[in-house]
Amino acid sequence: MKAKAIDHICFVVRDLDAAVERYRDALGLEPDGYYTAPSESIRVARYYLDNVALELMEPTTPDSEVGRFLDKRGEGFFLISYKVDDVAAGLEELAGKGYRTIDRKPRELMGNRYAFIQPPKDLHGVLTEIIDGEFDGSYDGGG
Amino acid sequence: MKAKAIDHICFVVRDLDAAVERYRDALGLEPDGYYTAPSESIRVARYYLDNVALELMEPTTPDSEVGRFLDKRGEGFFLISYKVDDVAAGLEELAGKGYRTIDRKPRELMGNRYAFIQPPKDLHGVLTEIIDGEFDGSYDGGG
Repeated sequence: MKAKAIDHICFVVRDLDAAVERYRDALGLEPDGYYTAPSESIRVARYYLDNVALELMEPTTPDSEVGRFLDKRGEGFFLISYKVDDVAAGLEELAGKGYRTIDRKPRELMGNRYAFIQPPKDLHGVLTEIIDGEFDGSYDGGG
Repeated sequence: MKAKAIDHICFVVRDLDAAVERYRDALGLEPDGYYTAPSESIRVARYYLDNVALELMEPTTPDSEVGRFLDKRGEGFFLISYKVDDVAAGLEELAGKGYRTIDRKPRELMGNRYAFIQPPKDLHGVLTEIIDGEFDGSYDGGG
């Protein structure tokens, strides 16, 4: 498996609207769009900087992966996602090498297949995702 | 000020050689080069993924910004750096808006001027840097 590029980086925030306003004011950044992912219980503002997406994510329920992360760790970096050719093949390769990945099968969302491959401790503190496909741009305007 | 692109992302690691080996094994990534920055007390492996640099950084002394971070927070995400046209002008603009940036003047390193603009609490948990110029590629082979 080869991580070909950074697909996106996610930061968890408590209040998405406040964070979007702060990024606008301090960094001149305007979201490309917003989406809500019920399967992940997140509301997201997505920014493109060249070909890399930056996502600010607010959990929509406290009892979700992102909600529990926010409760435990506070706001900040959540994960980095690398583009690969084939997420399923990547998971198989990692399993063959003895890695115990968080996901054994790809998740799917808006044109992408993706998988959380590593608990932070195994990639030196960084929650790491692999992804293939192209984000289909299903923004819902939920800014 | 406008953040035009992500220049680089830094992850702090305890053992750079072990981390490089893990990134090679799990993600197929090979460093473009290594450098040591005495002014920041770090040894760094730098990877380019498209135009974004990923840096794995090991502190060379415990009594440094990165060393104290590692001691307090453990391994993981350290900062994101955005390309801007002019770091000094960006700092002035932020000061004019009432932001209390970590650096009041740009730091300089290997062709880049850069400044830590925000304590994590003010950019929603994310240590944020602005940078201008181009990294001059002064790798020292210290892998």
